[in-house]
This record gives sequence, C-alpha cells and structure tokens, in this order.
Amino acid sequence: MSTEIKRIAVFTSGGDAPGMNAAIRAVVRASIYYDKEVFAVYRGYEGMIDNDIVPLDARSVGNIIQRGGTILKSARSKEFRTPEGRQKAYENLKERNIDALVAIGGDGTFTGLHKFYQEFNIPVICIPGTIDNDLPGTDYTIGYDTATNTAVEAIDKIRDTALSHNRLFFIEVMGRDSGYIAINSGIAGGAIAAIIPEEKMTTDELIEMLDKSDKRSSLVVVAEGGKSGSAMEIAKQVNERFSYYDTKVTILGHLQRGGSPTYFDRVLASKMGIAAVEGLIQGKTDVMVGVRNHQIVYNDFETTMNKEREIDPELLRIAKILSI
Amino acid sequence: MSTEIKRIAVFTSGGDAPGMNAAIRAVVRASIYYDKEVFAVYRGYEGMIDNDIVPLDARSVGNIIQRGGTILKSARSKEFRTPEGRQKAYENLKERNIDALVAIGGDGTFTGLHKFYQEFNIPVICIPGTIDNDLPGTDYTIGYDTATNTAVEAIDKIRDTALSHNRLFFIEVMGRDSGYIAINSGIAGGAIAAIIPEEKMTTDELIEMLDKSDKRSSLVVVAEGGKSGSAMEIAKQVNERFSYYDTKVTILGHLQRGGSPTYFDRVLASKMGIAAVEGLIQGKTDVMVGVRNHQIVYNDFETTMNKEREIDPELLRIAKILSI
Amino acid sequence: MSTEIKRIAVFTSGGDAPGMNAAIRAVVRASIYYDKEVFAVYRGYEGMIDNDIVPLDARSVGNIIQRGGTILKSARSKEFRTPEGRQKAYENLKERNIDALVAIGGDGTFTGLHKFYQEFNIPVICIPGTIDNDLPGTDYTIGYDTATNTAVEAIDKIRDTALSHNRLFFIEVMGRDSGYIAINSGIAGGAIAAIIPEEKMTTDELIEMLDKSDKRSSLVVVAEGGKSGSAMEIAKQVNERFSYYDTKVTILGHLQRGGSPTYFDRVLASKMGIAAVEGLIQGKTDVMVGVRNHQIVYNDFETTMNKEREIDPELLRIAKILSI
Amino acid sequence: MSTEIKRIAVFTSGGDAPGMNAAIRAVVRASIYYDKEVFAVYRGYEGMIDNDIVPLDARSVGNIIQRGGTILKSARSKEFRTPEGRQKAYENLKERNIDALVAIGGDGTFTGLHKFYQEFNIPVICIPGTIDNDLPGTDYTIGYDTATNTAVEAIDKIRDTALSHNRLFFIEVMGRDSGYIAINSGIAGGAIAAIIPEEKMTTDELIEMLDKSDKRSSLVVVAEGGKSGSAMEIAKQVNERFSYYDTKVTILGHLQRGGSPTYFDRVLASKMGIAAVEGLIQGKTDVMVGVRNHQIVYNDFETTMNKEREIDPELLRIAKILSI
Repeated sequence: MSTEIKRIAVFTSGGDAPGMNAAIRAVVRASIYYDKEVFAVYRGYEGMIDNDIVPLDARSVGNIIQRGGTILKSARSKEFRTPEGRQKAYENLKERNIDALVAIGGDGTFTGLHKFYQEFNIPVICIPGTIDNDLPGTDYTIGYDTATNTAVEAIDKIRDTALSHNRLFFIEVMGRDSGYIAINSGIAGGAIAAIIPEEKMTTDELIEMLDKSDKRSSLVVVAEGGKSGSAMEIAKQVNERFSYYDTKVTILGHLQRGGSPTYFDRVLASKMGIAAVEGLIQGKTDVMVGVRNHQIVYNDFETTMNKEREIDPELLRIAKILSI
Repeated sequence: MSTEIKRIAVFTSGGDAPGMNAAIRAVVRASIYYDKEVFAVYRGYEGMIDNDIVPLDARSVGNIIQRGGTILKSARSKEFRTPEGRQKAYENLKERNIDALVAIGGDGTFTGLHKFYQEFNIPVICIPGTIDNDLPGTDYTIGYDTATNTAVEAIDKIRDTALSHNRLFFIEVMGRDSGYIAINSGIAGGAIAAIIPEEKMTTDELIEMLDKSDKRSSLVVVAEGGKSGSAMEIAKQVNERFSYYDTKVTILGHLQRGGSPTYFDRVLASKMGIAAVEGLIQGKTDVMVGVRNHQIVYNDFETTMNKEREIDPELLRIAKILSI
Repeated sequence: MSTEIKRIAVFTSGGDAPGMNAAIRAVVRASIYYDKEVFAVYRGYEGMIDNDIVPLDARSVGNIIQRGGTILKSARSKEFRTPEGRQKAYENLKERNIDALVAIGGDGTFTGLHKFYQEFNIPVICIPGTIDNDLPGTDYTIGYDTATNTAVEAIDKIRDTALSHNRLFFIEVMGRDSGYIAINSGIAGGAIAAIIPEEKMTTDELIEMLDKSDKRSSLVVVAEGGKSGSAMEIAKQVNERFSYYDTKVTILGHLQRGGSPTYFDRVLASKMGIAAVEGLIQGKTDVMVGVRNHQIVYNDFETTMNKEREIDPELLRIAKILSI
Repeated sequence: MSTEIKRIAVFTSGGDAPGMNAAIRAVVRASIYYDKEVFAVYRGYEGMIDNDIVPLDARSVGNIIQRGGTILKSARSKEFRTPEGRQKAYENLKERNIDALVAIGGDGTFTGLHKFYQEFNIPVICIPGTIDNDLPGTDYTIGYDTATNTAVEAIDKIRDTALSHNRLFFIEVMGRDSGYIAINSGIAGGAIAAIIPEEKMTTDELIEMLDKSDKRSSLVVVAEGGKSGSAMEIAKQVNERFSYYDTKVTILGHLQRGGSPTYFDRVLASKMGIAAVEGLIQGKTDVMVGVRNHQIVYNDFETTMNKEREIDPELLRIAKILSI
C-alpha cells in the first residue's frame, strides 16, 4: 500500500444490472482525472484468465451512461475457482503492470476478489452492482432503483387488465434472497400483499386478507424463490379455496435486469465509481464501496459478507396500512 | 334504415386491449355530435343482462384516451349464451329505448352481437378491439400497435442481459392464433428467429439457424400456443442438443395487454369509434368496422368470421434476410 | 391537542407534483385504518373557502397511486390571503366538525397552513410535495425523483441528436431556487456542465470547459431562472464567442411536472401520508413531515422556512470529475 | 444498369430520425445477403468528400436497431453544393469501386442524390428518413411514428398539470411544413384543437372553440412555423382576449427527434432498407423507396419532389368531432 497505484483495471462480474455502465464510466474517468492508466477486463474473471484486457481512454466510455447491461460483459468462471486459474489471471495483470482492481458485481464477485487479494496482495475494491439490494453495508446497490421501477411499470400494465376484468393477479418479481424489490413494488403498485423471502405468509393469511377486502380486483406481488412458494404455487393454493376472483399469474423474469438506468442508479454508480478509485488512491483494499445515509463508506469483507441485509420493518407496516 | 336511431349503447367485451377507452370516448362524443343519446353498458353482455347501464355525456369520457384497459370493464357471460339471457339483455335495452349497439371486442364479441342482431333485429356494429390483430377485414385491430411496442420494449431490456452474458433467450409473446405480434416484435427486436402459429419450425431448422450464425447472443421470439410448442418446450429441446449458449426463457404474459395506448391505437380507435356511430346512422348493421389501406370499411359478419387473417409473407422473408 | 382527532381533511396546493395522488391515498387509508373520518378539499385553499369538501372512503382513492397530477386539484387563492377568506374556510371545516388538516404542497402551502394554525388553533401537518426538492428538513420532496427521471429521459433523446450531428445542446430544466434537478440530471445525462442557481458560472468558465474537452458533441443543463441567465441567454453568449459547435436550445418546461410517479415517489408519498396522520394522532401540529436518512422526522415551521436547502457539494465535485 | 452492382455505400444525411439505424442495419445485411460488399460513409455528403468511408460486415450493425439517432452521423455539407465537392466525393467512391449509393434522409438528401446521379450516372436510391412525414410517394417516413408517440407522451404529462390546475396549455410540436405530427398528436392527446401549417386558424376561431367548450382544462397543439403563428404568439393573442383559463406554453423542441424507435419505425426501416438494396439489384436508380397501402413502391425524383404531401382531410374532420 506504500507504493503509488498507477494502473487500474475495471471489470464486471455476476448478473448484469442497470447502471453498471455508469459505474465503468466513472471508474475510467476518475482514473484518468487522477492521472492513472485504466484498463478494461472483458467477461469478468474469465477474461482476466483469457487475457481479454484492453486500455481505455475518456472517450471509450462516452455515450454508455444510459445503457443497460454491461459493455465489459460478464461471465461465470469455473477456472477462476482453481489456484491455477487465479495464477494465470494474476500473471496477465502483472504483464501489463496493472496494480489495482475495481470489480463491479454482487457477493460472488466480492468473494472472488477477496480470495484474489489474499493470494496476490494486489489492492482491490468492489462496487455493489446487483438489482437485488441484498448487500449489507450499503443502503442501495446499483440497479435496484431501475429494477424496481421496471417491476412497477409492468405491474401498472397488469393492473389495467386486473381492473377491466375484476381479476386477482399474482406477479412474480426478482429477489431470491431479498424482498426489497417485492415489498417496494408491492407498495408502489398498490398490491394487496407482497410475499417476501424474509417472512413466511400462509395461504390462510393471504386468503383472509383477500376475503376481508372489498376490492374488486387485486394484485399480489411475490418474490421468486421464497419459502412461501412460487407465484404459481401460491396462486394454485388460493384458487382452490377462494373462488371470488378469476386468478392469473405473470412472471416478470429477466426483463427486470435490463433497460436504461434511472437517474438514481446513474448518479449512485457515478459516485461509487469515483469512490472506488479514490479509495484505492487512499490505500484502501479488500473493501466494498457503500452509501450509508447519503455518505460514501468502505465496508471490509467480513462486515459485508457475514451480516444479513435485513428488510426494513417499516415497509411491512406501511404495506399493511395501505392495503385496506 | 327507415327508423332513425336515437339512443346508442356502447360496451366492451372479451380481453381488454389498449385503445378501448379511446374507442369508447369516440363513440360517446360522435353520438353526442350527431344528437344521439348515449349509454354505457358495464361488464359487456353480463352487465347488459344485469341492467348495469348508465347514460353518459361528453365529459364522462374526459381524461380516458390515454388509459389502458377499459373503463366500462369486460366480463365473460355464460348467461348470454342462453336465449333467456339474451332476452333479459334485450328487455333492459328496450326499457331505456336504446335502439342501437356498439360493441368493442374480438371475434367472440362479434359472434354474440351477430346472434343478438338476428334474434332482436336491433342495429349493431362491432369495433375490433384485440391485441392479436387476428381479424380479417381490417389491417389493424385496436391494441395491436401498443402490445407490439410493449413486447419490443421488453425484448430490448432482455437483449441488454443477453449481450452482457452471451446468452440465448427464448421470449414468449401473445398471439395464440396470429403471429403478428411475434413476427413484428421479432424483426423489431433483432431476433434471430420468430416462431409463429402459422408456420411450423422444427428444432432442427432452428438449431441450424443458430449454428450458422456467428452472433454471440441471440433472441428467439415465440408466439404462445403455436404448433411448434411453447417457448419453454422449444428452449428445452434446443438446449439438449445445442450447448453453445446458456439458454433462458421469459414469458411476457399479461403485461402485453395493458399500458397507455400509442398514438396509432388512439387515432385508430378514434376513427373507428366515429365510423361505428356514422355507420349506424347510415343504416349499417351486423358489420365490423375495419381499416383497409387507410380507408374505413364495414365488413359483414360472414366476411369477417369465415376468412382467416393470414400473415403477410413479406414479413417472413424480411425476418430471414435480417437474421444473418 | 388534548382532544382526540376524529375528522381529517386533506388537500393539495401549489404546483402539482407526481406522487401527490399516492400521498392523498395514504392519508385517506391511514385515516380509515385509525378509525378517523376523512374528507377531501378540492382546489386547495380556494375550495376550502368555496366549501368544495366531500367525504372519502378507502375505495375513493383506488387506482390513483400511478397517476400524475392531483385528483384533488390545486389552485392559487387570493382570498385565502385575507382574514375574511380564512374565516370562511375555517367555518366550512367547522360545519363538518373537521378537526385536523393535512396539506400537500411546497413552501407557500406550508406558509398558509402555518397562518391558519396560528389563527384557529386547528392541528395541521404539511407533506412536502414539489418537484424542486428545495425544502430543508427533508432529504427528498415528493415528485423530485420522477421529475429528475423525466428530465434525464428527455436529455437521453436529445443526446441522440447531439451525437448524430456533433452539436452542443443547452437544455433548460426546472428548479428556480434549487439546482437539484439540474445537477443530478446533468450527471445522469452525461452533460459537460450543469449550471445551477446556487453557483454563478461565467461564460468564460463555460467556454474554457468546452474548449478543453475533446468531446464531439456536448450537453449543458441549465436550471431555469438562475443568476447565470436562461439557457437561451447562455447559449447566445457562448455561440457568439465559440463557434466549434452548432448550438441548439431546448426548454423542457411543464412536461417535467407530470407523468406517472416512480416507485421511489410512490413509496415516499405513502410513508409521508401515513406519517402525517400518525403525527396528528400523536398530537403534532404546525410541522412538515420529512425523511432524513430514511427515518420520518417532523420539522417545525421555523426550521423548515428559515433555513435554505443547500446543494450537496459532493455532487458538484462529481460532476466535474466526470465531465473530462 | 447493365453491369452488376458489387459494392454499395450507405449514409445518412439531414436531420436525424429514429429508425435510421434500423435502416442502416437492413441495408448492410441485405447487401451481404445478396453477396455485395457494403461500406459506410460517415457524416453524409461531408464524409463522402472527406473520404470518411469504411467497410462494414453483418456484425458491425449488431445491437443498433433500438437506438435513436444515426451511428453514421449526419452533417450539412456546403462543399457538396459545388461541382468540385461532388467531384471529390465521386473520386473517393470510385477509388473503392463503390458502384451504388443508398442515402437515408429527407427531401434535401434526395435532391443532392439526384444531382449526383445526373452528374456521375452512379445508381442511387433514397430511403425517406425524417420525422415530419412530409414526403409524397410514401404513406409513412421513418421516424414519424416514434416522434408522434414522443409528442403524445409529453402531452400526456402536460395534461396531468393542466387538469390539476384547470389550465389551457399550448404545446408546440415539430412539423414546419407538415401538420401530421400536430394533428395526430392532437387527436391522440385529446387536444381541443390542433393548429397545422396546411390550414390557417384565426384567433377568433380558436377562442370560439374554447368558449363553446365546457372543458375545465384544455390543450392546443401547434405545429411550429405555421402561418397561424408560433405557440407563443397564439397563446399571447388568446390570453389577451380570453381570460377564463390560466395559459401556459411548452415547446417540445428537439426531444421529438431522438429516442428508441417504435416497432413500427423499426419494421418500416427494415423493409425499406431491404427494398433499397433489392431495387438497386433490379436496376432501379434515382428513386425514393416508399410504402403505399403496405406495399413497397419506388418513386422517381419528379413524383416525389414536385408534389405536395397533403394532410388527410379525414383527420381534421375527426379532430373536430372529438373536441366537443
């Protein structure tokens, strides 16, 4: 950490998230602003092993801030899980005198980065890019704001049909380990209930809610992969026992990942990209950038990975009041 | 033609489609423009039987042109399929001296209307409101333009992820009997193939296309319910025999029905709503309004229902050229 | 404050903002949840004087959470500025035994409410609804997130043309007293500079930035009504002295106010609406609801009105780094 | 025309329009499909003179179908208006053995192309790319559908504010010589009137319409540059004599040009791009591709340029009926 960083490489890894390109742009421009050379590694750890690494300049990242996905592409790498793979990756970086890494991704990305740091002692910083908002140490991850808006826009469209036909719709949204997209899109979409992984809701409870309500059409938002079952399973159980509504299911799926990022995700990603470069310059390593109460923080690996990101109980309380 | 029409009732029936509200608004305002009284029947034939009928004025339909769904709601009616149900419906209309009907819906709606006309000799006109664009006698049905754009916007989002990960996505769109949404959203979404109900495509043919291509990510659009199988089934078959890509499936489902209509659907619905009222005034009955080569036409029941709406072969040819 | 509140009236005042309807809905449903009766006052203080007041139930606010504008309408009231006007307003409330008020609006709204409270000692709470994000005491006002996204979407479209023609575009956004929309939409839109009311930027400074840059097209975002001049004036001055670019101006204007609110504004409005009702029940009065670091706060009149909402200097710093 | 075409160059010229990239893609892929080599000329005629010409392959135009603007950029060229400039342009083409040109643009583009053809006898075809829909010989130009939807989305947002405040809004849209955007966005936006270049509307007529109406808020759409005056001028005249409403003006400006194209524009551009290449192969030259009643047509220079594109009188009739 005593030696000055001169050459930074940036890459994206794991599932893509809207705003990743804004983060890449910020890393590149901040690097140049601080007179560092900057390189792109394509296809995450896979490209690091395959030596898919190219230098970038300020114009390389022009006209990308508004684009979904990641221009650096992302991939899973089995080889990076082996010591040989990581050694190869390290040698490719060394060959170009790259002396620091910025990774953009979720917890899997940070875990790989942590291991790499431990083995080769190269400064590394992770930027949280995942739509799930499931990382402790930051109020928001990049992509979450956009994905929630995408879910809400889809729910708004489905509501048109629900209202036109007096139907009950079950809408499955993303968030296998975190109910943030589900609870917020449920509140914003005017759903009667949001079923999240953090809380079991029984069919009895749900039917009681539907039964008490005098709404002529209703929406239930379900986070995929939760312990209460999939949207399809829950719908089936409700349908068997509660016949007031004509019941339908829609699974939003991958369309929640893409799309042009919101201003919020673009600004968040811009802040975090700059903070990653400035963190490296200040000698930080093995940390994940976060934003807590509007301030940049740097979370070490243990803090980030050993805690659970908990759902805000206030959101559950609000959802209940509004569903009357 | 001998007796002047004085009181017109309008209703929506079958699946909702974006632009139905614009059509309702046009029927109401055109009726008033021509000094007719105008009534809303809620929930289609079901409301006609239940006497859920109210008078409207020009302001009743203010601020609805931009809304998806139908403010008059829609429902399926088993009772209307019985002579007793239709008799009840007729009496409710007669009680209010309603002497003409405008229905907005698809082929099921027109079939019911035709039967009603035959039994009670009341002038009736149907406006084609369905996202599927599957009715002969009109170049476009109301809702189709919006639904296709909704599908394309979803495909654009999925492409972000496909490109970021070098994946193959199968995207299922609506259009059980008509490939219009699939072929047009496939061309507009840059898909390598669109699988439509009108044409069988074998897994061999599809794999050959994928194999010849040097694209690093690909999209295949599949119309639901076609004879080539569902998106899920086709994806499974491809995946078993062609492992180059990581394969994913997204089913767009009901979100294609809703949403604010495009300018095209609003203007089309406005034209057709006015044409329906003017057709009734001119003595037309038992016809469906259509637009052929930008001109209003009135199609009789046989013409509309006994022909098949065929897919434009030029679209298939174009799709093939562009997918190289 | 000792006596229990039983009847709450809600109204919107000042310029409309996306999310106001979500706030109205939350006030209505929270009131009912806590067994209060709830009334709508139409057209703000004007309707209070004109006795345009109606009772609401939970279903009255169904299907409005996604709509822009305000279903309760808003108006300026000269008469409310007179003691006689306020007296009349008070009597209309008294007649219905309304014993608490929730107002949704900006600083003018809160000022009127404060005066009304001082004169008649009726419990009042204000919810900050304004796109400008110019109220101290809250991190976000309702409508700001949506308006910034609307501005960014417009900037994205203009960028397409700027890039196609190597042009310099000046884009005027809202925010007469606050640069939040300008600075955030500038960062998110990839602008080379954002000119905000809080900071004077000279033509010399701007030209120097443009001159140093090697961008082939550029965007400058300008907050309306700032001391650096309007977009039109600044563009003219730049154009006279710097001829590298073809220069164009677009004034976004009122389209920034409307539109369906983002999830963020809907959830913020929902929280604040509930907090307003709960604040009244807890005996709070003459305060404005706010959110600070994700927690609800209640700001008294002096705190809110005597401080200036300052721009986050970090945003200015970030904007500068990214514009290289 | 007897000799076979082997090398085609494509370029965009004049104002950018959404869908131009889809047209470029179709020209490139169709050329390759028919075993031609294909080249891009950047910045229109200017780049042709500057020798800014590069070969393309099928992958060069991947992931562009959804993008607004033109990846080939566009520019005005004074030098191309001189015989020397055109000579230089021709020599640059000749050097690469380019033996046919496809231009995408408006009437100015076609005029330049026609002159070039007359002078150098090189086969040329023009594709109509302009948002104004002001070219005879085709039912639709590329970009018009998208621009009209963009205008309507803006109008929808403004309506939220108009309704919230009982205001009269004047909204200026593009279309200096053609009222298509104005009349269609007026109908689709629920405007009380659309003022178009093809028809003079006096302030008296407009005030009479407003006066007769019992609408509490109203929108008037005005095409820029028409003989009835600008939106600002008309608003001022109305405001001086008709004080019922609070009057506001919004000028949509350049944001109408950009944005991701609709499915309609993408499919239209795809068809036309293929038709341009097939036309060249069939020996056609000095023509503009068009679509009449869903069929591809080729219009010669005189037909296209000596006729006026007239507004469909049916649209004016409909607008009137709906504005009651």
